[in-house]
Amino acid sequence: MFRARIDAALLRECVEAVLAVVDEARLKIGEEAWKVRAVDPANVALVDLELSREAFDEYAFSPPSPSSPPSSPSSPSPQEEGAEEESVGIEIGVDFGKFNDILRSGWRKGTVSIILEDKDKLLVQLDALSYTISLLDVSSLRKEPKIPALEFSTRVVVDADDFKRTIKAAERIGDHIAMGVEGDKFYMEAEGEMEKMRFSLRKDELLYLSGSDCRSLFSLEYLAAMAKGISSETLTLFIGTDYPLKMEFEIAEGFGKVIYLLAPRIESE
Amino acid sequence: MFRARIDAALLRECVEAVLAVVDEARLKIGEEAWKVRAVDPANVALVDLELSREAFDEYAFSPPSPSSPPSSPSSPSPQEEGAEEESVGIEIGVDFGKFNDILRSGWRKGTVSIILEDKDKLLVQLDALSYTISLLDVSSLRKEPKIPALEFSTRVVVDADDFKRTIKAAERIGDHIAMGVEGDKFYMEAEGEMEKMRFSLRKDELLYLSGSDCRSLFSLEYLAAMAKGISSETLTLFIGTDYPLKMEFEIAEGFGKVIYLLAPRIESE
Amino acid sequence: MFRARIDAALLRECVEAVLAVVDEARLKIGEEAWKVRAVDPANVALVDLELSREAFDEYAFSPPSPSSPPSSPSSPSPQEEGAEEESVGIEIGVDFGKFNDILRSGWRKGTVSIILEDKDKLLVQLDALSYTISLLDVSSLRKEPKIPALEFSTRVVVDADDFKRTIKAAERIGDHIAMGVEGDKFYMEAEGEMEKMRFSLRKDELLYLSGSDCRSLFSLEYLAAMAKGISSETLTLFIGTDYPLKMEFEIAEGFGKVIYLLAPRIESE
Repeated sequence: MFRARIDAALLRECVEAVLAVVDEARLKIGEEAWKVRAVDPANVALVDLELSREAFDEYAFSPPSPSSPPSSPSSPSPQEEGAEEESVGIEIGVDFGKFNDILRSGWRKGTVSIILEDKDKLLVQLDALSYTISLLDVSSLRKEPKIPALEFSTRVVVDADDFKRTIKAAERIGDHIAMGVEGDKFYMEAEGEMEKMRFSLRKDELLYLSGSDCRSLFSLEYLAAMAKGISSETLTLFIGTDYPLKMEFEIAEGFGKVIYLLAPRIESE
Repeated sequence: MFRARIDAALLRECVEAVLAVVDEARLKIGEEAWKVRAVDPANVALVDLELSREAFDEYAFSPPSPSSPPSSPSSPSPQEEGAEEESVGIEIGVDFGKFNDILRSGWRKGTVSIILEDKDKLLVQLDALSYTISLLDVSSLRKEPKIPALEFSTRVVVDADDFKRTIKAAERIGDHIAMGVEGDKFYMEAEGEMEKMRFSLRKDELLYLSGSDCRSLFSLEYLAAMAKGISSETLTLFIGTDYPLKMEFEIAEGFGKVIYLLAPRIESE
Repeated sequence: MFRARIDAALLRECVEAVLAVVDEARLKIGEEAWKVRAVDPANVALVDLELSREAFDEYAFSPPSPSSPPSSPSSPSPQEEGAEEESVGIEIGVDFGKFNDILRSGWRKGTVSIILEDKDKLLVQLDALSYTISLLDVSSLRKEPKIPALEFSTRVVVDADDFKRTIKAAERIGDHIAMGVEGDKFYMEAEGEMEKMRFSLRKDELLYLSGSDCRSLFSLEYLAAMAKGISSETLTLFIGTDYPLKMEFEIAEGFGKVIYLLAPRIESE
């Protein structure tokens, strides 16, 4: 049904990006890409990962024979192609925690082969080591969420390491962090009983900044988990006032993309 | 009131040197230097740190306006200058543990700016990250102790790494360590139920040794904490028989100095 | 009685090889070699270490004066030499855990001097640091076990790192691991509830393989401990069907050898 080969480190980046939000999720294997879209059990965070077939060294996909007869040749409407493409594909239930364990087991370099022979088992090969993983029943996993339509007032591109370090620093201070823009400055701010921390960069110190002043508060627990999932050098943030946060970064040299959405917390001041 | 800039790593050395003895202490900011002198809650260990303004990249000190009227021009006695200098300065209460947390938060390189605007808040800036720390009420902290007048029989200069390694090795053996000189040898000795450990160097293997034979016993718990505070390459030890230990080392390439005093334990043999 | 000097890292390898099976054991110091042979408390694992005097930088052995008078000159039978050699030697009781602690204490490089002056104390010197370790009463330790006569159907030489990584990977999966040969392939296999792991190499990917098909199951707890004791680059495995495992590797550039024996577990399928 499916057979692919991919750089082991890159696959780990993808698995860790998903793990930042959920342990178990549906993985959609399509003709053109892998897709995972899932929300955390509390409905606060969403991950949307797409990894194009160009990111793989090998990608052999044969769509499963449809359970319903193929559409008759009398409906050739090219308009339906997009919708059609959505439905062609295999959906499997993956325990990303277990998957990560395997990818971390000693053979971390080189390439990994991934073979799906039936809907129950995934074969993962790293050199001389091969794993057969039982897949989860797709119907037992939550449905793939819709991505809400959002309009952000402001967009900022930051150095991913700066972002991660600020999240780490904020964790020493308190439980949540404010993010916002004030004039030509982007800031992240956390407050504890005895201390206040503020990370702040002017537009000319950032990679990109456009939009209006805004400010939202987020849970550091979620943000810290997401920060661990970020493997890129730069990170694009979409923010608003008391509005969700959208983070976006590239993986696989641009052949993949991860989006995180995080609900805001209401500032009680 | 006060504004300075200093190498972040050097500042961390100072903070860790103090933390080896106390968590909270009074920091005296004077025209010429920073000074911390404090004893641990059990009155067993003392730290005395001095960091000269030459250790800073920037050091702007404006003494607070005196609460009492300035002395009248009719008392120009130059003899009182020394005593005067003591009293000119700002004393703030610092939680060195929190301070250290901040200095360890991801931005460990480069320089730190320290700004004191009023007696309640300290502003610490590391690149794009800035912290506002609430200061402790000075009156809630123990008074600065007097350094007792001590006369040591013996002075030894050792390699600081050798000293630290010996302390670590001794911790595997027992709870206290003896230090002393026997003839032309300096030794450190610990004893457990099944093992005895002895570190010993002859005068020609040491950086310096002078004085008479002596031996004192110290708590390893305190010494291990102090060993972590030592950031220099060499360490000067002043010892005696059943007498306190004085340790002295330089920081900031000689523009600062740390002294530790540790009470002896009585050898029960 | 005995005085030797040896590379500290090499001595640690020996101590760790023994520690993989037992904490305390008899060490036999002979004219030509050091020997340790011991079984674990549950009688499941055995270690047999031999370190030839050529592995030492210095090796001065003076056999203890015999408690019985020397054999009369009238029995010069050269046939008995072998048996005689066995009995000449010193047997001491060593806490290898404590010994390892000492060798790990900061001075890990350079050479170690080992001096046995009486049967109660061992003197260990690492540079300026010296330890006196109380030896264990030999009579309180289990007798040296006999190595059972075993005939293995199959012999495999593997890369030691591959072996260790596979053991580590298997520990994430389950409690035991199967090892065997199938045709021209050597394999190691572990099974969990959701996953199966298989490490497999063909004869031409191995350093050596000869013998017939076979399969035995072993406890991962024991194997993982033994894997930590292996310091060589290659490892020789002797296997059979539902039969003990024998592992053999060289230390000290061939001047020493370690053998592990491990009882099989019965496969319950």
